[in-house]
Amino acid sequence: MKICVLGGDGYCGWATALYLSQRGHSVSIIDNFARRQWDYELGVQTLTPIRPLAERLRVWQQLTGNVIELYVGDVTDYDFLASAMQSFEPDSVVHFAEQRAAPYSMIDRKHAVFTQVNNVVGTLNLLFALRELQPDCHLVKLGTMGEYGTPNIDIEEGYIEIEHRGRRDVLPFPKQPGSFYHLSKVHDSHNMMFACKIWGLRATDLNQGVVYGTTTDEAAMDEALINRFDYDEVFGTVLNRFCVQAAIGHPLTVYGQGGQTRGFLDIRDTVRCVELACLNPAAPGECRVFNQFTEQFSVLEVAQLVQTAGHKLGLAVEIEHMPDPRVEKEQHYYNAKHSKLIDLGLKPRYLSDSLLDSLMNIALEYRERIDSSVLLPQVNWRSGANERKRQVALTEVAALAGGR
Amino acid sequence: MKICVLGGDGYCGWATALYLSQRGHSVSIIDNFARRQWDYELGVQTLTPIRPLAERLRVWQQLTGNVIELYVGDVTDYDFLASAMQSFEPDSVVHFAEQRAAPYSMIDRKHAVFTQVNNVVGTLNLLFALRELQPDCHLVKLGTMGEYGTPNIDIEEGYIEIEHRGRRDVLPFPKQPGSFYHLSKVHDSHNMMFACKIWGLRATDLNQGVVYGTTTDEAAMDEALINRFDYDEVFGTVLNRFCVQAAIGHPLTVYGQGGQTRGFLDIRDTVRCVELACLNPAAPGECRVFNQFTEQFSVLEVAQLVQTAGHKLGLAVEIEHMPDPRVEKEQHYYNAKHSKLIDLGLKPRYLSDSLLDSLMNIALEYRERIDSSVLLPQVNWRSGANERKRQVALTEVAALAGGR
Repeated sequence: MKICVLGGDGYCGWATALYLSQRGHSVSIIDNFARRQWDYELGVQTLTPIRPLAERLRVWQQLTGNVIELYVGDVTDYDFLASAMQSFEPDSVVHFAEQRAAPYSMIDRKHAVFTQVNNVVGTLNLLFALRELQPDCHLVKLGTMGEYGTPNIDIEEGYIEIEHRGRRDVLPFPKQPGSFYHLSKVHDSHNMMFACKIWGLRATDLNQGVVYGTTTDEAAMDEALINRFDYDEVFGTVLNRFCVQAAIGHPLTVYGQGGQTRGFLDIRDTVRCVELACLNPAAPGECRVFNQFTEQFSVLEVAQLVQTAGHKLGLAVEIEHMPDPRVEKEQHYYNAKHSKLIDLGLKPRYLSDSLLDSLMNIALEYRERIDSSVLLPQVNWRSGANERKRQVALTEVAALAGGR
Repeated sequence: MKICVLGGDGYCGWATALYLSQRGHSVSIIDNFARRQWDYELGVQTLTPIRPLAERLRVWQQLTGNVIELYVGDVTDYDFLASAMQSFEPDSVVHFAEQRAAPYSMIDRKHAVFTQVNNVVGTLNLLFALRELQPDCHLVKLGTMGEYGTPNIDIEEGYIEIEHRGRRDVLPFPKQPGSFYHLSKVHDSHNMMFACKIWGLRATDLNQGVVYGTTTDEAAMDEALINRFDYDEVFGTVLNRFCVQAAIGHPLTVYGQGGQTRGFLDIRDTVRCVELACLNPAAPGECRVFNQFTEQFSVLEVAQLVQTAGHKLGLAVEIEHMPDPRVEKEQHYYNAKHSKLIDLGLKPRYLSDSLLDSLMNIALEYRERIDSSVLLPQVNWRSGANERKRQVALTEVAALAGGR
């Protein structure tokens, strides 16, 4: 199967591209290296020393004989995207090429506008390119469980049958996203449903939970293939960040009461879910939604798991509650369905001590690269403008640099 | 009350600005004349000869002594918007400043992307400007009944109580918009709900039905104040278009079976609804939704009303069914609630013979300005790219011009 991975240099995208290539698919990557640029902007870097994409792809070819084609460009540039589609002619397009950090979208107005325009226009371009050039190609789009928010009813997979005043219909599940980033994914979802309906496109919207882990079988083959491991307050997902905090003796920073419950999954399940979606495409005109996670945890439960794993390694791990920089419920009902990928054959890897050990070992291995100043939340949902704080932080860096 | 009308040079915006000014409010207009530009682009013009805004405002001041302040600029330009907000310091902002034609958004990719970026960024900018500069100002935002689509259950006003597997919650009403334009309004709605929640802003989302009519008491005071009357396939709303067709003996063009049922209202009720919303602001943190229409009709019923009115005026009016250029249900259940504005005091003006007579008389009065070539639908929802047809049409115009 010919599969094009948009955003294939990113955290999930890179792991997915390697996995699909290893599984015998013909894989190409589209990327504009925006993710690396955001690290420069924020003054942070991945814990793991990732290599330039060209080097990664060269090593992959040397190790496996598999060529992953690369198209460098921006999906918001329609001419570029269309020419890449025409050149590669994919059977499936896996779309990870979006700005994916909620805190990044909440820095200030410019970051909110950037996130929404970037994500919405990229996806619109992709829909039009498929309509024009590859109408039978299956779009596998990364959404997020965060689109749903935390309603007081069970969360279904994309659609819900509603009975109201004696009548019934199956309608899109109501969305209550919690950041300008999560909103951008809701916008995408509505645009995709419409494009499938009017043009007969086929799409799968993968509403993914919080991903943890960094190692996949493929990435583990050579250090040059190592995946990124973000632990900063903006791009770091919570379990990865807690492991880094445990490794350096920093208290685990739980926002508020920590009752915020979310779906989680291992990155090794992410890549399998994507392949399952590709191998079992949606029908023409269908925009189906899979909730892509394997377990639910509250943030406090995650912290407690990391604490226990840390103790086993002889680390003194403390848990610290701090004011929640986000606007969200700190205690709430949460029960989200996630059976459709299991019906397609997913065998979930549950979060176990061994996985936590390996994550913590990675954190310990690259301990000298940890910058503890990027762990605490600086982006506050309520302020509307966090650029000043960042400027102050950068000024301090400049002063430090000048003082040396 | 100080009220700023964004998009105050447009169809609903102009009528609203005059009405609010006449009612004693201190009114300002923000406009970038985009609406006039789109007429040039499409090669169409309003049936009524509207004057430049500067002239309209001068005449209004001469007639009434009321000054309407004007800020010329684009709401997608944050610096401009912020400086206008700082200068005028409104109590309410009425936001009409969006691209509002579904067919325009469906012309091709560029028009779809333009519509969504223009509308979403303008509204995001406004939310951030209010947060930063006027956090207590009440945002009155024009949404559309088209956000809901045509579900098989009753349409509530913005939110619906759902009982699901033994639990209950009040959630945003599921949206199934039918064009990239309608989608842009759904995106706006989600962004607004979030901004009210995290920043405590106060907003009213007016999900307006199809507006008809052109005359208001204020616009009727002088021909220089006349409002626009769009009848072309892109910007013309259906009742106005049917009246023009009847006036020139063109069959009324009903798309498909004509069972498409929508909410309608008189433009004289639009302006009253907006004032009612301003006078009864939402609470801080509240994003309330009013369904702003007074009657439901199917498209075929509207055609039959115009036919009857035409017969009374001695006009032979035929109804022609043509293939529906849109992707929509041609027969469906439709029952939308609309009691909240009535609870606030709206006394609906129902579509009557006399209103239809006056509309038809306007169409007859300006009959020589009617261009019958712009009545038939050229924008097709299924094609994804209608720019070629338009280019052909323009080429024909060029050939004609050259041949003269």
